[in-house]
Amino acid sequence: MVSPWKTASVPGLQLGLGCGFWICRSYRFLFRAGAMGPHVVPRQLVWLSRWQAVCAWGASVQHRTWAGVSRIPSLLSSGGALSSSPLVCRSSSSTPPGAPEVVLTQQRYPVTRLPFSVVSSEDLAAFERILPGGVVTDPEVLEASNVDWLRTVRGCSKVLLRPRTSQEVARILRYCHEKNLAVNPQGGNTGMVGGSVPVFDEIILSTTLMNRVISFNSVSGTLVCQAGCVLEELSRYVEERGFVMPLDLGAKGSCHIGGNVATNAGGLRFLRYGSLHGTVLGLEVVLADGTVLDCLTSLRKDNTGYDLKQLFIGSEGTLGVITAVSIQCPPKPRAVNVAFLGCPGFAEVLQTFSSGKELLGEILSAYEFMDAECMWLVTHHLRLASPVQESPFYVLVETSGSRAGHDSEKLSDFLEQALSSGLVTDGTVATDQTRLKALWALRERISEALSRDGYVYKYDLSLPTERLYDLVSDLRARLGSQAKHVVGYGHLGDGNLHLNVTSEAFSPSLLADLEPYVYEWTARQRGSVSAEHGLGFKKRGVLSYSKPPEALRLMQQLKALLDPKGILNPYKTLPAQA
Amino acid sequence: MVSPWKTASVPGLQLGLGCGFWICRSYRFLFRAGAMGPHVVPRQLVWLSRWQAVCAWGASVQHRTWAGVSRIPSLLSSGGALSSSPLVCRSSSSTPPGAPEVVLTQQRYPVTRLPFSVVSSEDLAAFERILPGGVVTDPEVLEASNVDWLRTVRGCSKVLLRPRTSQEVARILRYCHEKNLAVNPQGGNTGMVGGSVPVFDEIILSTTLMNRVISFNSVSGTLVCQAGCVLEELSRYVEERGFVMPLDLGAKGSCHIGGNVATNAGGLRFLRYGSLHGTVLGLEVVLADGTVLDCLTSLRKDNTGYDLKQLFIGSEGTLGVITAVSIQCPPKPRAVNVAFLGCPGFAEVLQTFSSGKELLGEILSAYEFMDAECMWLVTHHLRLASPVQESPFYVLVETSGSRAGHDSEKLSDFLEQALSSGLVTDGTVATDQTRLKALWALRERISEALSRDGYVYKYDLSLPTERLYDLVSDLRARLGSQAKHVVGYGHLGDGNLHLNVTSEAFSPSLLADLEPYVYEWTARQRGSVSAEHGLGFKKRGVLSYSKPPEALRLMQQLKALLDPKGILNPYKTLPAQA
Repeated sequence: MVSPWKTASVPGLQLGLGCGFWICRSYRFLFRAGAMGPHVVPRQLVWLSRWQAVCAWGASVQHRTWAGVSRIPSLLSSGGALSSSPLVCRSSSSTPPGAPEVVLTQQRYPVTRLPFSVVSSEDLAAFERILPGGVVTDPEVLEASNVDWLRTVRGCSKVLLRPRTSQEVARILRYCHEKNLAVNPQGGNTGMVGGSVPVFDEIILSTTLMNRVISFNSVSGTLVCQAGCVLEELSRYVEERGFVMPLDLGAKGSCHIGGNVATNAGGLRFLRYGSLHGTVLGLEVVLADGTVLDCLTSLRKDNTGYDLKQLFIGSEGTLGVITAVSIQCPPKPRAVNVAFLGCPGFAEVLQTFSSGKELLGEILSAYEFMDAECMWLVTHHLRLASPVQESPFYVLVETSGSRAGHDSEKLSDFLEQALSSGLVTDGTVATDQTRLKALWALRERISEALSRDGYVYKYDLSLPTERLYDLVSDLRARLGSQAKHVVGYGHLGDGNLHLNVTSEAFSPSLLADLEPYVYEWTARQRGSVSAEHGLGFKKRGVLSYSKPPEALRLMQQLKALLDPKGILNPYKTLPAQA
Repeated sequence: MVSPWKTASVPGLQLGLGCGFWICRSYRFLFRAGAMGPHVVPRQLVWLSRWQAVCAWGASVQHRTWAGVSRIPSLLSSGGALSSSPLVCRSSSSTPPGAPEVVLTQQRYPVTRLPFSVVSSEDLAAFERILPGGVVTDPEVLEASNVDWLRTVRGCSKVLLRPRTSQEVARILRYCHEKNLAVNPQGGNTGMVGGSVPVFDEIILSTTLMNRVISFNSVSGTLVCQAGCVLEELSRYVEERGFVMPLDLGAKGSCHIGGNVATNAGGLRFLRYGSLHGTVLGLEVVLADGTVLDCLTSLRKDNTGYDLKQLFIGSEGTLGVITAVSIQCPPKPRAVNVAFLGCPGFAEVLQTFSSGKELLGEILSAYEFMDAECMWLVTHHLRLASPVQESPFYVLVETSGSRAGHDSEKLSDFLEQALSSGLVTDGTVATDQTRLKALWALRERISEALSRDGYVYKYDLSLPTERLYDLVSDLRARLGSQAKHVVGYGHLGDGNLHLNVTSEAFSPSLLADLEPYVYEWTARQRGSVSAEHGLGFKKRGVLSYSKPPEALRLMQQLKALLDPKGILNPYKTLPAQA
C-alpha cells in the first residue's frame, strides 16, 4: 500500500524493520492539514489504515490458538518446570498418533493414595440408576479425561459420570460421600496445573452435559447457565444479544464456565472487567455430602449474611462442585483498536502504562508487554515479522469502547504523547479483525516459540508492577550461559509476569538454580507464585511462598468443614498434610 | 438566562414546569445548522449550558448531606420499620439538646444477653497495659459510641478501646477471647441496621486511631491503608494523585474504609466500579482469638489457595476485625455529566436504561430512578423545584469519562434517541459541580422529604430489574388509604429499590399489612431483603427470606469455626439460634 502521507513526512517518521510500517510523530499535524478538506473530523484515523501484513515470510496468522490445535489454549505459562514439553499436543479424545504415552502421575510424582474406597460393580450399578446412560467405563473414552491437555499428568480413573442436572450431581455426591469414594470434578480439562484430572482412580464427574442456558436478562445483562456451558458458546450467545462475557481465555473453545469459576480464571479481559469475584453474581454448588447450596441469585446487590459463593470461586473443586453460574455481562464494545509499540526500557513500559490509563481512561482493555528476547523467539522460531523497529521492550495496548471515532481520537492522543515524550520509539495500530489478530499473535505465540527453543522452565507470577522485570534481569545474570534464554512477558496491566527460561535439555543444576530461588524472590516481594492458573496438583507444594501459615491453617479448616472426608478433588490445591 | 436557541425552536421543544428549562428534540438539527459557523465541532454541547437554578423557592442546595448535618449520611433507606423518626439527628459526641433519650436496645427489643464475662477493673488494667492512654471509660464520650446515628438502638458499653496498630488489636482480642469478653468492632458508626453499636455491654473496639495510609502505588493505583481511614480523606488523597476510590457514599465524611469493607458497602459508584468483592485486593484481619491473618496483598491476581479475604467482606465484624485494606483505585474521570429526565412509565425507565447502556457504554456511571410521589415529596416538603415537566417517573443518568467532548457527544446521542422514541418526554443536563449537585439533591433528599411526611416504614430491597416497581404498585393497591404515600426510588442500575411507606403515625395494623408481606414478595422474586445495608442487629431476623436453610447453616458453621466463643459482634448478622 502506498501511503498518501509518505510525501508529507517530517522528521520523526519511523520506519519499522522488515515490514515497511510507517508511524509518524506528526500525524496530529497531518490531521490538522487534512482538516481543511471536506471531512473535518475523520471518524476514523487515517493513519490507522497504514498497514501491511505482519507475517512477512509465510507464517500463518494465528490468534489465541496454539500449534494449530484450536481446542487448546495458547497461554502455556505455568506448565511447571517439571512438565514434559508442551509441544506434545493432545487430541480431543485419545493419544495422538506417535505421541509418547504420558507417565502415570503416581509413578512420576511422590504421592500416596489416600484410603478412599475403590469403585465396585455395585457402585457402577448405583451410578447407572442415578444416571441411566451417563456412566462411561470405556477405556478409550476415559483416556482423554485421565490426561491433562499439557500431557504432563495422568490418572487411572475407571469411571466417568456425566450428569445433566444438579440433582443428579447431588445424588452422586451423596452416594460417594456415604461410600467414601473420591471424586474429580472436571470441566473442559484445559487447566495448566494438573487440577482437572484424577491423580489416582478418583471418579471423574464431568459437567459436559450440563450445558444449558437457564436465563438471560437483556436489560441487566445477567446470564444464568449450567456449569458445563462452553465459554465460547456463551460468548456467542450473549454477543448476539449485545453483551460480552466478562472473561475471555485462549481456551474458550473448550473450557467450561463452571471450571472458569472454580479456578478463578483471569484471562484477556481481566484488566477491563476485573475478577470473577466481582462479576459472578451467584452460584449453585453441590457440597461434598450432596447438599445443594442454592446461591444462584441474579442480584447485583445482596448483603444478607456472608457471601458464600466467594468461597467456591477459585477453590478448584475442592470445596464443592459448581453446578450453575449467574454472571454479569457488560455491554459489547463497538470498537476495538490494538497498538503495538516499541519502548526503550522497562521504566518507559511502566510510564507508558500510566499515560495509557490517563489518556485512554475507560477504554483501555489490555496492556501486555514482552521483551526483546521474546521478539527474537517469535521472529526466529515462528518466522513472524516484527512490525516495529527493534526495541528492548514491546507493549500491546488494546482499547475497547462504544464509539470508534472517540476511541481513535483518544488513542491518537495517547500515542502522540508517548512518541513525543520518548516513552515509545516506534509503533503500529490495527482496527480490523485480521490485523488485530496478527498483532495479538506476536504476544500470544511466545509460548509456542519458547517450546521450540528447548526445554522450558515456566513460572506464572504476580509481582508489584514496578519490580515486575527485576526478576528477569536478576535471573539472566544469575544463570549466565547455563540458560539459552531468560524471557519476561505478560499482562503488565494486571501485574502478571510470565517468566520463562530455556535450555537445550532438562538440567537438574539449572533447576536447582531456579527453585526455590524464583519462589523466594517472589515471596520477598509479597508476590504470588500462581497468578492466574491456580495450584491444582502440580503447584500445591509452593502455596506457602505466597500465603502465611495462618492462612494455610484457615484454608485447611475450611476444607475440613466443607469436605470432612476429603473426597472432593483430593491431592489438589492444599499441600499434603504431614 | 435567555436561550439563544429559543427562537430556533421547532415542534418538540419542551418547557419544564416552573423553572423555565428548555430541552429540544431537534438539538441535533440545531447543531448541524450551527456547524456552518466557525466552531464546526463544539467541544461541549451548547444546550448543556441552558440551565436555571433548581431551587426556585429558596431551599438551599444540599448534596449528600441530610438535615444539614454533614457528618451524617443522607441515604436513610433502611432504618427499619420499627425505627424512630430519623428526623432526630445525632450530634457527633452527645445527645442533641432537646432530643429524646434513645431507649436501650435490651429494653426495646426481645433480646437476651449471652453469658459473656463482665468487664472488671482487672480487665481495664490489662487494656491499659496494652493501650496506654487508649482506654476510654468516660460515659460522656461513650454515649456517642453506644448509640447508632439513626438513634434507634443503644448499648450500655462501659469501655471503648482505641488501638493504633493491628498488633494492639491482636493483643486485645487474644485477651478478650481468653476472658470470654464480647467485642463490638466499630468504624465510623454510620451503619443503618444497628450493626455498629453494642447491644448490651460489649467492649467497643474502635478503629478511629488506625488512620494511616500505608502505601499508594501511583502506577497501579493500589492503596493500602489502615482500617480506620475515613473514606472522604482517602478520596482526597487518591484524587490528588489522579485516581478515585472505587466507592462513594453519603456517609463518606465519617465512615471508615474498614467498616465499608466489613459491611460490603454499595453506594454511588457501584454501577461503574462494581462490588468491593472485586475491588478489594487484600485485607489484614485479626481473628477472634487474636491471630493476625495477613492477606494484605496488593496483587490484582493471586490464585494461591482459597481467597480468604472474601469471607470477611460483608461479614459485619462477626468473623474477624479488619485492620488494614488494600484496594484498587480506578483513574479519576475528567468529565462528569448528569441528565435528569422524565419518563412516561416504568417500562420506559427500563428501556431508557438499556439505551443508556448501549449508547453511553463505558461512561455510564449512575442510573437512578424516582417516581412521581417522590418528586411531590421533595417539591412539597423541601421546596425544591422540579427541573422537568411532571412525569410518572424520573431518572437521573450520570456519565463519568476521560474526555468531556466525547462524553457530551455520547450523551447527546443517547438523549436524542430517548426523546425521539418517546422513552423520555422532558429533561435537563448539567456539567458543572453546583448544577450536578442540585440535580443529585432531587434524588438524594427523598429520604429527608419522607421523614417530614410522617412515620416512615423503610425497606432496602434488591429485585430483578423488570419487577422492581411492581411491588410499589402492588402495595399502593394493598394499603389504600391506610398509607399517606407509597413511594419507590433507588439505584435502578443496580436493581436496588428503596421502598418507603408513610403514615401520620406509627400504626401496628399498617405494619402488619407490610410485614411479612414485603419480605415474602421479595423472596418470591428471589430478591434480597437487604440490598446494601447488611443485616446488623435490626434485620438479622429476616435473613431467611433471602437465603435458603442450607446457606444459613453454612454461615453458622463458618461463624463457629472462626469465632467459636461468639465474642465478635454478638447478636448481629445471623439470626439468634434457638
